[in-house]
Amino acid sequence: MNRRQFVQCAATGLSGISIRSALKTPITSEPLHINGPRLNRHLDELAEFGQTQTGGVNRIAYSEADLQGREFVRGLMREAGLDVASDTAGNIIGRREGTESGMPSLMFGSHIDSVPQGGNYDGPLGSLGAIEVAQTLAGHNMVLRHPIDVVVFQNEEGGKTGSRAMSGELEPEELALVTHSGHTIGEGIRIIGGDPEYLDSVRRDPAGIVAYVELHIEQGGLLENEQIEIGVVAGIVGIKRWRVTIDGFANHAGTTPMSDRQDALLAAARFIETVNRVVTGMPGRQVGTVGQIEASPGAPNVIPGQVTLSLEIRDLEMHKIDRVYQAIETESRELAEATKIQFSFDQFYLSRAAPTDEGIRQLVGDSAAELGLSALRMPSGAGHDAQSIALLAPIGMIFIPSVGGISHSPQEFSRPEDVVNGADVLLNTVLKLDEAFD
Amino acid sequence: MNRRQFVQCAATGLSGISIRSALKTPITSEPLHINGPRLNRHLDELAEFGQTQTGGVNRIAYSEADLQGREFVRGLMREAGLDVASDTAGNIIGRREGTESGMPSLMFGSHIDSVPQGGNYDGPLGSLGAIEVAQTLAGHNMVLRHPIDVVVFQNEEGGKTGSRAMSGELEPEELALVTHSGHTIGEGIRIIGGDPEYLDSVRRDPAGIVAYVELHIEQGGLLENEQIEIGVVAGIVGIKRWRVTIDGFANHAGTTPMSDRQDALLAAARFIETVNRVVTGMPGRQVGTVGQIEASPGAPNVIPGQVTLSLEIRDLEMHKIDRVYQAIETESRELAEATKIQFSFDQFYLSRAAPTDEGIRQLVGDSAAELGLSALRMPSGAGHDAQSIALLAPIGMIFIPSVGGISHSPQEFSRPEDVVNGADVLLNTVLKLDEAFD
Repeated sequence: MNRRQFVQCAATGLSGISIRSALKTPITSEPLHINGPRLNRHLDELAEFGQTQTGGVNRIAYSEADLQGREFVRGLMREAGLDVASDTAGNIIGRREGTESGMPSLMFGSHIDSVPQGGNYDGPLGSLGAIEVAQTLAGHNMVLRHPIDVVVFQNEEGGKTGSRAMSGELEPEELALVTHSGHTIGEGIRIIGGDPEYLDSVRRDPAGIVAYVELHIEQGGLLENEQIEIGVVAGIVGIKRWRVTIDGFANHAGTTPMSDRQDALLAAARFIETVNRVVTGMPGRQVGTVGQIEASPGAPNVIPGQVTLSLEIRDLEMHKIDRVYQAIETESRELAEATKIQFSFDQFYLSRAAPTDEGIRQLVGDSAAELGLSALRMPSGAGHDAQSIALLAPIGMIFIPSVGGISHSPQEFSRPEDVVNGADVLLNTVLKLDEAFD
Repeated sequence: MNRRQFVQCAATGLSGISIRSALKTPITSEPLHINGPRLNRHLDELAEFGQTQTGGVNRIAYSEADLQGREFVRGLMREAGLDVASDTAGNIIGRREGTESGMPSLMFGSHIDSVPQGGNYDGPLGSLGAIEVAQTLAGHNMVLRHPIDVVVFQNEEGGKTGSRAMSGELEPEELALVTHSGHTIGEGIRIIGGDPEYLDSVRRDPAGIVAYVELHIEQGGLLENEQIEIGVVAGIVGIKRWRVTIDGFANHAGTTPMSDRQDALLAAARFIETVNRVVTGMPGRQVGTVGQIEASPGAPNVIPGQVTLSLEIRDLEMHKIDRVYQAIETESRELAEATKIQFSFDQFYLSRAAPTDEGIRQLVGDSAAELGLSALRMPSGAGHDAQSIALLAPIGMIFIPSVGGISHSPQEFSRPEDVVNGADVLLNTVLKLDEAFD
């Protein structure tokens, strides 16, 4: 077989990942299909655990509904012929050995925990889609060369706990964080059958994973707006967040003439406009958001003396985030000089961008094309478990349209035919990966 | 004596007040002076009740410090030869009868309660200045034609309770409001020796008051900036406040492209800029303030779907307030159409403008001129007890400079020489009023 080397995406930000996979020329054949009605039925069944009156789902990690959902998923894995186990972090892993011994495993999956008052697709699609792929393979008596690991990661929404334990990123302090369930993460790990004292054993050796692929809903409106069926994810955006403090001078709103004011909220308004202008003024898909704001003292009859607000910038390229930030910071300095107002910036959050592997992107695109589906390369604006596994192995992600671009809401919805399309692309991508990678 | 009729200010907003006073030609004589060192010493002594470590004062109505301050003030009134009494609202009234029987009283005074963490001049200046005027008259064995009522109103900062009881504006529901002291206003009235069941008896007959004059610090920076010694207050501004609700659509800050957003906070920022532009774009001294803001859901990674904020507009003329509001509302409607954002306005507060009496303004200006002090006609941007008494009698107000324009703060300060100037103007204005009014 001819082999050609993978080209690692240049804009990586993940210099720690070595290029160790090789692509073989894929065998041309009719694409395989998953069982669409079965997958959509499983999605409906899982949605019953934590179902809310508004038609959404409240299946926060470590809750009773989460425990029930996990038990349901284990059953589906067994039906798909997988050997089911949990690691000590509580990630559920369904394994099936391959035909060739000593091969690293092909990993695919997602999560089933939800945000409070969330929807039925963010996580479940990729988890049940992965199990459906395994069941389809079993139904066709197909055994791959590589072992397959179908993974349902725990507590994605509350900090990607399961996948970050696997990549070795989880910090011991995080175990004390209280989650929406009311339990700390450490307590939660025990509740789902893990052991927070032995998380080192969860960490995976990069040599043991050949690739990771995750199917997910887009959570935005790009695919729907462009009427495209499959998103070939170019990478998961990096995120930086700052706490911005704007200091003016609080004074009486009746006795202080307009010309004498050092109104921190007026400066904040100009800052928010500046963020929008700078972010939209550069070419590219970067986004910038001011989501939190607090003005003090916060009375109708007092000119605000101080405003604190959050600034978040996301892009696939970290240096682009920095460029946007620099432009905002420069304009703020000019604003400060003109208005006797002080701006200060304190970065409090960083999530590195995780580009997907160019070879896997090609295989996802080829699979979509063979299935007769339109596809578009696009970034993922949201974080995913794939981001953690990117520290261990080449990753790929497959998106399907979110109706109305709505997510983290009971209104989150993806059409059954799109669900089937996504799982079909996952199935054929896995088959191609098994052929192409060693 | 020649008499000429008073000209009531045209821009009144207080059509209920009849013109019933007549101005007599004043007797030209050397202006009298109060005892400056004594007044400044009294101010220092009062400042000890509720004094804070930062040099300010925490003498909120109905607190222990307030009770001590009231006792101190009663003592000063007695020293000034006044008959001291309280009405059932708890207003302290020091009375001295006049030489002519059956005359309405000349009233002057202010309050001694402070905002939390307030200063030493807002209220005490006018209260102790009025007592000083009475003591100076007593020291010169001068008895006026009219009786004098030196009044220290209770709970000015918490809603002008005392003066509004006197004008009949106090609503029964207000007695249940909890004040900064932890007590309701009703409980507070009992604490200071009044009786909330008999507030009707506090209401004064307009025929019994010939005029009311209040000395106060400016609380703004106009006099200091213009290097003027005395402010002749043209009136107390009217105030309208609205709760503004801005509805957009909350969405994921990572997955929603900039062009698809309905960001309520970005719209709020443009609204705040619009308020500033409209208010400063019209000639006049109107002020407009956004002091409160809340964005929901209020997370760094969620585009705000709703913002609520306060809008306050103040001016001496109510129709000017309405004109400013209309311009803001029109621009908001245009902003809403352009951005798919909804604006709604809910007015929740109204305080009518209270112009001062033109005759009293002239006497204040004449007094300043005779004392060799520079004077400027100006509005009061803050509310005062005089505003309540304007419903009963012609009012006048005298301002002295506030250093740095700072008020409601421990940094509130007026120079001792300005304190003396203000009380001198009050003394001579009272003398002229006694001559000029019947």
